[in-house]
Amino acid sequence: MEIRIERATTLKEKPKAGEALGFGKYYTDHMFVMDWDRGQGWHDARIVPFGPIPMDPASMVLHYAQETFEGLKAYRTKDDRILLFRPEMNARRFANSNRRLCMPEVAEEDFVEAVTQLVACEKDWVPAEEGTSLYIRPFMFATEAAVGVHPASSYKFVIILSPVGAYYPEGVNPVKIYVEDEYVRATPGGTGFTKCGGNYAASIAAQVKAEEMGFTQVLWLDGVHRKYVEEVGTMNVMFMIDNEIYTAPCDGTVLPGVTRDSIIHILKSWGYKVNEMHLAIDDLMKAGHDKTLQEAFGTGTAAVISPIGELRYKEDEVTINDFKTGELTQKLYDTLTGIQWGDIEDTFGWTREVK
Amino acid sequence: MEIRIERATTLKEKPKAGEALGFGKYYTDHMFVMDWDRGQGWHDARIVPFGPIPMDPASMVLHYAQETFEGLKAYRTKDDRILLFRPEMNARRFANSNRRLCMPEVAEEDFVEAVTQLVACEKDWVPAEEGTSLYIRPFMFATEAAVGVHPASSYKFVIILSPVGAYYPEGVNPVKIYVEDEYVRATPGGTGFTKCGGNYAASIAAQVKAEEMGFTQVLWLDGVHRKYVEEVGTMNVMFMIDNEIYTAPCDGTVLPGVTRDSIIHILKSWGYKVNEMHLAIDDLMKAGHDKTLQEAFGTGTAAVISPIGELRYKEDEVTINDFKTGELTQKLYDTLTGIQWGDIEDTFGWTREVK
Ligand SMILES: Cc1ncc(COP(=O)(O)O)c(C=O)c1O
Ligand SMILES: Cc1ncc(COP(=O)(O)O)c(C=O)c1O
Repeated sequence: MEIRIERATTLKEKPKAGEALGFGKYYTDHMFVMDWDRGQGWHDARIVPFGPIPMDPASMVLHYAQETFEGLKAYRTKDDRILLFRPEMNARRFANSNRRLCMPEVAEEDFVEAVTQLVACEKDWVPAEEGTSLYIRPFMFATEAAVGVHPASSYKFVIILSPVGAYYPEGVNPVKIYVEDEYVRATPGGTGFTKCGGNYAASIAAQVKAEEMGFTQVLWLDGVHRKYVEEVGTMNVMFMIDNEIYTAPCDGTVLPGVTRDSIIHILKSWGYKVNEMHLAIDDLMKAGHDKTLQEAFGTGTAAVISPIGELRYKEDEVTINDFKTGELTQKLYDTLTGIQWGDIEDTFGWTREVK
Repeated sequence: MEIRIERATTLKEKPKAGEALGFGKYYTDHMFVMDWDRGQGWHDARIVPFGPIPMDPASMVLHYAQETFEGLKAYRTKDDRILLFRPEMNARRFANSNRRLCMPEVAEEDFVEAVTQLVACEKDWVPAEEGTSLYIRPFMFATEAAVGVHPASSYKFVIILSPVGAYYPEGVNPVKIYVEDEYVRATPGGTGFTKCGGNYAASIAAQVKAEEMGFTQVLWLDGVHRKYVEEVGTMNVMFMIDNEIYTAPCDGTVLPGVTRDSIIHILKSWGYKVNEMHLAIDDLMKAGHDKTLQEAFGTGTAAVISPIGELRYKEDEVTINDFKTGELTQKLYDTLTGIQWGDIEDTFGWTREVK
C-alpha cells in the first residue's frame, strides 16, 4: 500500500508534560484517510492534516449507521521506543465487524501498515508519563448519499490519534457494578461480536441509568434468557471462583477483546484453569455470598484491568474481596501493562516496535 | 419556534415531468437545520441551502451511532394543494426514538412546524405525476467530538427532502419473502421500536442474503424464541386468516408504523377484527398450506402496501392467493393512497394541508 503524506503547515501545541490528558481531549496533527468505492476498491491512502470531513446530509452513515471502529494504543517505553500491542488482532476484528455490516474489508497488512505509518508520523505525540499512551482510533463509515437501506457503494476508512492520560492516576481501584436486567446489549443473530456504532448507541441508556443509581458500569446479561453473564460496560469480564477463572465464550454476543485474549494467555501460562462458559448470574451471586467468588475484573484496552468490588443484581448485593483489588487482579495488571510499556520481557511476542 | 430562512442564490434544475424520479436520486435546494447543546438546548433553527455538513472526524455519530431518523411524505393533490399525512405521529415516534438513545427530544409542534415550513419553501419540488411524492427525511445525530461512550453534549437536527417516484410504476405486485432464521433484527430490551441507525445497519446482511436467494425482502422472527412473526424488511406485516387480520403488537421490538396504525383504523372502520398478537411462524405456514391464509401484505410509508405472494421458511414454501394481489390488499391500497393524495374524503382527519 502506497501512502501519500501531506504534512500540516502549522503544528498544534502539544499538551505540556504533567498536564492531565484525559481521554479524547487532544487530537494529533494528522489523520489517515483511504476511500473505497465499488468500482475502484480501496484507493488514495493518505496521511493528511487532521480536520473536518465534509459530509453530504444524505450520507448513509448519518441515517443507517453503517459504521465500525477499532481501538488500540501506542506506548512509549523508558528507553524511548514506541510499541504497538497486537495490532493484527484489531485488524482481524475490524474485518469481522465489516463483514457482518456488509462493509468492505481492509487487508490485515494494510490496516497494520496504516496504523504504523500514522503513529510513526506522529511519534512526538506519544506521551511519556507513567501510564499515558497514544490512543489509536481506526474507523470506517458509509459515505454514499442515499436514503434506501442497502450496502453503500462508497466508504471512508479513517484513523485518528489522541494522547490519553493514565486510566488510574491514583492507582487501580475497585468499582461498583449494576447488573442490568431491563436493557439488552446483544443477542444471537445480532451484532454483539462486532465493534459497530449501533451497539454503543443502544448501550448508553443502561450506562446512564447505572450512573444515576451510583454505579460505575453495568454488567450485561444475555438477551435470550436474561440469565448468563456477558460483559461489563465496554469490557470483557472475568471471575475467579474457587481458584478457577470464568469468562463468557466468544460465540456471537460478546466482543472478542484483545485484552481478554491476552489475559487468558497469561493466566494459562501461570497454570490457571480458564473456563470460557456461560455463567448464570444466580450462580455468580451465590458464589459472592458464600465467598467462593474471590476476585472479579473487567478487561479492555482503555483500563487494561478494572477490579469489581461490588455487584448489585435486583435486590441482591455482594461485595467482592472486601472491596479491595485482588492479588491476582493486581498481578495481571502489572504483568500486562509491564509488557505493553516494555518494562517486562515480552515472552508472548505481542509488541511491535514502530520505527 | 423562529425559523431563519437563507435562500439559495442559484436553484437546481428540477427533474422533468415524466422523468423517472427513483428514490433519493434528487434532493431539493434547501434543508432545515437546528442545533442543540447542553447549555442552550435547541437553537438557531434555520432553512439554508442544501449542502455538505463539515464533520469533525471525532464526531460521536461516526463512532457510536447516536442517530435517529424519520420518514414521511408530502403529496400533491389534483387541485394542487399539498398534503402531509399524520406528521404528528412521526414527531411522537421521533421523540420515543430519541428518548431511548438518550438524545434530546424535539417538541411535537416544532417538528411539525419545521417539516411544514421546509415543504412550503420547497413546494415547487412536490411532483405532480400519479403516485409520486416528496419524501421527507428528518434526522438527528451526535456532533460532539469525543471518543468516550456517553450521551453527546451536542446534536444536529436536520430535514432533507427528495422528490420520489411512484413505488409501483407498473401497479401493485406481490413479492417473494424469505423468513430469516439466522439474523435477528430486534430483541426485548433493545432498540427495535425506534428508528435508530444501528437497527438498519444490522439488518443489511439479511437483506443481501435474501436478495442473493431470489427474494425481495426478509420476514423477521422474534429474537428470543425465533418463532414469532415481527416485520417484513422495513415494513410492518399483516395477514388475513379466516377473514380476521393478524399483526404483531408494538411491545418493544416492532416499529410502530404510521401506515400500520392507519390501516388498522381503516380495517376496524370496515368491521374487520384486527388481532395484534404474536403469531407463530409454524401456525402461519400451516395456514398457508390449508389456504386459511387468504392475504398477506407489508405496510410502510414508501410502498404503502406491499402484497406478499410467497413465503419461504427453511425448506417449506407457501404461495398466497395464487401469487395475486388480494382483494382486501388492493382495496386498502386504493383507500389509503386515495386519502393521502386527496382523492377520497379524509373522514379520519389525517391529512394536514401545507399553505
Ligand atoms: C463491548 C466491548 N467489550 C469488550 C471490549 C474490550 O476489548 P479490547 O480488550 O480489545 O479493548 C471493548 C472495547 O474496547 C468493548 O467495546
Ligand atoms: C423497521 C420498519 N418497520 C416498519 C416501518 C413502517 O413504518 P411507517 O408506516 O411509519 O413508514 C418502517 C419504516 O418506515 C421501518 O423502518
